Amino acid sequence: MRVVYLDNAASTWPKPPEVKEAMNECLDQFAANPGRGGHQLAMRASRALFQTRVNLAKLFHIKNPNDMIFTSNATSALNQAIKGWLKAGDHVITTTMEHNSVRRPLEFLKKEQGVSITYIQPDQDFLFSLNDFEQAFTDQTKLVVVSHASNLIGTLAPIKEIGELCSRYQVPFLVDASQSAGIMPIDVQEMNITMLAFPGHKGLYGPQGTGGLYIDPTLDLVPLLHGGTGSHSESIEQPMTRPDRYESGTANTVGIAGLGAGVEFVLRTGVEKINQKERKLTNALLDGLAGIDGVKVYGPDKSVERAGVVAFTLNGIDASEVAFLLDQQYGIAVRAGYHCTPLGHETIGTMGIGAVRASFGYFNEQEDVTALLEAVREIQGELGK
Amino acid sequence: MRVVYLDNAASTWPKPPEVKEAMNECLDQFAANPGRGGHQLAMRASRALFQTRVNLAKLFHIKNPNDMIFTSNATSALNQAIKGWLKAGDHVITTTMEHNSVRRPLEFLKKEQGVSITYIQPDQDFLFSLNDFEQAFTDQTKLVVVSHASNLIGTLAPIKEIGELCSRYQVPFLVDASQSAGIMPIDVQEMNITMLAFPGHKGLYGPQGTGGLYIDPTLDLVPLLHGGTGSHSESIEQPMTRPDRYESGTANTVGIAGLGAGVEFVLRTGVEKINQKERKLTNALLDGLAGIDGVKVYGPDKSVERAGVVAFTLNGIDASEVAFLLDQQYGIAVRAGYHCTPLGHETIGTMGIGAVRASFGYFNEQEDVTALLEAVREIQGELGK
Repeated sequence: MRVVYLDNAASTWPKPPEVKEAMNECLDQFAANPGRGGHQLAMRASRALFQTRVNLAKLFHIKNPNDMIFTSNATSALNQAIKGWLKAGDHVITTTMEHNSVRRPLEFLKKEQGVSITYIQPDQDFLFSLNDFEQAFTDQTKLVVVSHASNLIGTLAPIKEIGELCSRYQVPFLVDASQSAGIMPIDVQEMNITMLAFPGHKGLYGPQGTGGLYIDPTLDLVPLLHGGTGSHSESIEQPMTRPDRYESGTANTVGIAGLGAGVEFVLRTGVEKINQKERKLTNALLDGLAGIDGVKVYGPDKSVERAGVVAFTLNGIDASEVAFLLDQQYGIAVRAGYHCTPLGHETIGTMGIGAVRASFGYFNEQEDVTALLEAVREIQGELGK
Repeated sequence: MRVVYLDNAASTWPKPPEVKEAMNECLDQFAANPGRGGHQLAMRASRALFQTRVNLAKLFHIKNPNDMIFTSNATSALNQAIKGWLKAGDHVITTTMEHNSVRRPLEFLKKEQGVSITYIQPDQDFLFSLNDFEQAFTDQTKLVVVSHASNLIGTLAPIKEIGELCSRYQVPFLVDASQSAGIMPIDVQEMNITMLAFPGHKGLYGPQGTGGLYIDPTLDLVPLLHGGTGSHSESIEQPMTRPDRYESGTANTVGIAGLGAGVEFVLRTGVEKINQKERKLTNALLDGLAGIDGVKVYGPDKSVERAGVVAFTLNGIDASEVAFLLDQQYGIAVRAGYHCTPLGHETIGTMGIGAVRASFGYFNEQEDVTALLEAVREIQGELGK
């Protein structure tokens, strides 16, 4: 059975063929330790890392590629940003739509260090009010953390406007681009983004085990990892040099070589074109779901700009059961459950029942939407009340 | 020019062909998010992770595979172990032969939290005295951290005996197996190892971006990363379930699939056989170097059991220059410098000049030793004083 893969918000799949080619070339020819030896293989590995850094800098409009550090995923980037910056007594502003990769580090710091948190809630149309953000600022506010696109219902936060606010209040702005990197235009300069955390394995089409964090050059974080950097080995302290300061230990050379090819694919294809394709599929799905009795879709209607993530429930049927049937009987891969964002489920009113999430990538086609709609119609017809 | 790769202590290369095959199979067929969705691709990804865990548990004699967590390298494993366990006022015993991935996290905790550190120094024959360890224990001693094999001169620490001591004093014992995992027999039960940190990309023949930490089931660490675990999503705290508690964020599925194949290669070949082959090549190199005027080898003579890492200097020639010439003129990849272990260099007396390090893997052959010896002879003849 052909797999209809609609779980791209977790990991995009398949990848463009050049990603595997780049990884195999690296494995075959130069999977040595970058920066840790002067020999030719190590130099090639260093160049591969630097090329990926340059590609990412171009995509996100980062001036100096060395202000971008590689991490193993967005979660480790967010932990580095949050735990490396906040101190006892600090106040942070965030939203109820954040993933657990933001919420759990914050709640940990709240419990352990007395960091205080304000959670901004979207309105009934799932939109954030800038005024809510502005009113939340206090003298102790040291960070604003917002996810660009919801991993649950695909809504976008007004990043540029929040960035302006942060710039005005001189508070660093951390953006979680897990669902937007490679799919939405991101310009760290224009959007006043101080830190940008992103996964490599979603909209950037790299393999899992890759990700990164942009850190504004004026910011100094406590490194999450201390260790060998291949530079300033004689010092007992982490070097100040970037990216070494935040990149202890051997890099995922093969994965980063693959990520480089993924980002090249995104740059060549164009973020706008990727976005338009996913939007078209999303709208087709929203239209189709609207025509099925008993289906409830969460999130804004299709007039609102959004990411290619659609959450829905079937009246009277457990979300996990729907996902199970889609997988087993129709070969359609979606996700059910809480998607690591319980506050988001509370916000949209699906706590306790969860939701089915279908999410698109650039390699999905209209036939995937058609297959999902037909399957949902059948399941609803057989089991729905 | 054929590359003679003698930098296996940084990363082994090449890998057994099945590592690439496993990675490609994963990329092509199931690089979805393990444990984060119930669909078939996600299930296959979960199984691949679990199989690698089972292989590693078998290799290290770990009772429950879920007590082994995946990390992106040994450095992140060591940071998780050290920062997740030590608290303000604790005392730790370690050695002067540690890598910066142990020393820097410890020195960070010393500076930030007042953790105190005793560094045990080996004797003139590069051997540790158990008595030195025993005398270092205090009432505040909460951890002993020792690297199994030196990444600089290949010497082994008496892990089993130190483990007995730790067990007697009821102090957790953390072993850095960066240079020994897959090459020396390791039995966490028999050796009283409480935590074992290891890289995937060295003696286990996996790709870079992989590694792990065994954590004794009686030990609870503060997680280094907080975030989504695909389990207990509704809780604001990290789940207690292992391995989820310490594995936030999307796993490096492709890399771990490759690591699984690497560990299978090690299990199939046998640690003893791998060790013997590397030992034979090491002895041949030591014999050859002993016959070249002006070459000084650091570390024990060949009668002592050791890892396949050989450090040497050529009288009057800068180590970096030797490495550069070996690379450029002979196509031989070695490493020069401090190898991220400045204390080790102080200990062996090469601080300020560094050393050339040649290190073996299972895929090296006698002809590689011969090539290195001939090249060293020529360089010494031309430039040595």
